[in-house]
Amino acid sequence: MGDPASFAHLRESQLASADLVRGSFLYARRDTVVLPDGTTAEREYVVHPGAVMVVPLILAAGEPLRVVLERQFRYPVQQVMVEFPAGKLDVGESTAACARRELHEETGYRASEWARAGVIHPVIAYSTEFIEVWFAKGLTAGERQLDRGEFLDVFTATADELLSWCLDGRVTDAKTVAAALWLQNYQAGTWVPQWVSA
Amino acid sequence: MGDPASFAHLRESQLASADLVRGSFLYARRDTVVLPDGTTAEREYVVHPGAVMVVPLILAAGEPLRVVLERQFRYPVQQVMVEFPAGKLDVGESTAACARRELHEETGYRASEWARAGVIHPVIAYSTEFIEVWFAKGLTAGERQLDRGEFLDVFTATADELLSWCLDGRVTDAKTVAAALWLQNYQAGTWVPQWVSA
Repeated sequence: MGDPASFAHLRESQLASADLVRGSFLYARRDTVVLPDGTTAEREYVVHPGAVMVVPLILAAGEPLRVVLERQFRYPVQQVMVEFPAGKLDVGESTAACARRELHEETGYRASEWARAGVIHPVIAYSTEFIEVWFAKGLTAGERQLDRGEFLDVFTATADELLSWCLDGRVTDAKTVAAALWLQNYQAGTWVPQWVSA
Repeated sequence: MGDPASFAHLRESQLASADLVRGSFLYARRDTVVLPDGTTAEREYVVHPGAVMVVPLILAAGEPLRVVLERQFRYPVQQVMVEFPAGKLDVGESTAACARRELHEETGYRASEWARAGVIHPVIAYSTEFIEVWFAKGLTAGERQLDRGEFLDVFTATADELLSWCLDGRVTDAKTVAAALWLQNYQAGTWVPQWVSA
C-alpha cells in the first residue's frame, strides 16, 4: 500500500474552480490544479452526491443462498443491465437511511439486519461519486414504490448464478461485479459481515 | 438473467440528441427519450471512447502470486488510489493494442501472454464508458514512458494482499475491486484464462 504521509510527490492542489456545466441531471466542474512538478493542468469532473448499493440476501435453511437483483435499461450503455439495487443519496440523508429507502422503493423488500461492507469509487478519473455497499438480510416482501419514469424488473438468483454471470460476461455493471467479490467471500466465510438490527 | 427478447417493457428510445457540453476533457450529451409508457424524459451522459485495464501477473516458482499495481492521486476523489494499470483507447486502437501500450507506458513492463477476462461498465447511469479487462503474464521490466503531467508510482503486492485490501477498504477503485473477483477465481482455479502469445 505504501505510507500515505509519503505521497506528496503525487498530490495535485486546486488553484481555481468553476462550473463547467449545470445540466438538469449532470453537474460538472473544471478546476485548474498545480501538479507535483509545479506546472498547472485542468481537471474536469462530474459532481455527484454519492450513492448506496444493497446486496439483499435470501437465506432459507437447506436452500442455496439467493440474492435480489434488478433488470433495468441503462440508456448511456444502451443495454438492459443486471444489477443490485442502488440509488443516490438525498440531501442530508445518511447512507444507512438511503440503503433502507432504495431497497424498499425499488424492490418492495424491507430487511431486519444490515451490515456495511465498504465503499467503492466507480469512476475516479472524472466523478466525485462514491458508492457505499451494504448487505441486508431478514427480508420481508412488500409493495415497491418506483419513481415516475422508473422502469425495472426485480428477480432473484442464487449467489452462484450471479458469480458465474460476472465471470462469463452476462453481468458487466462494475458496482455489481465489485459487490460479487464481497458476496463470494461471504459465502466462503473469508469475509464476515458485522450485522446490526434495523 | 431473463430472455433479452422480452425486455421491450424496459427499453427507452432516442427522440432527439444534442451536445450538453464539450470541455477540454469531458464531453457530455443530453438526449430526449421515449420511456416504455410513452412519456418522454431527458438523459444526460458523458461520452467516453472506452478503456482497458490490465491485471499484470508475476509468477515465480515457489513464490506466492504477485500483481503489478499503481498508486496515483485522483483529483475528483481527492485521494491517492491503488489501482491496476488502465487507460483510454486512442482513436481506431484495438483494446488488445491499448492494453499492451498502457501497460508499457505506465509501468515499463511488456508481457508475452495475454488473456481477455471480460468487460465492465463503470458508470451505467451517466457514461458510455466500458473497460475491457485483460490479464497479462510473462512480464519483462523496462523503462516506462509517462505522459507529460502524469505522476504515478508502480509497485507490486501479492494477490492475497490485494484481495484483503479490497475487502477491508484500503482499495476502493471499483474497476480494481471488480478485477479482484477474476483474480480470486484465477487463484482458486474457478476461472481459467485463455492465454494467447503477444
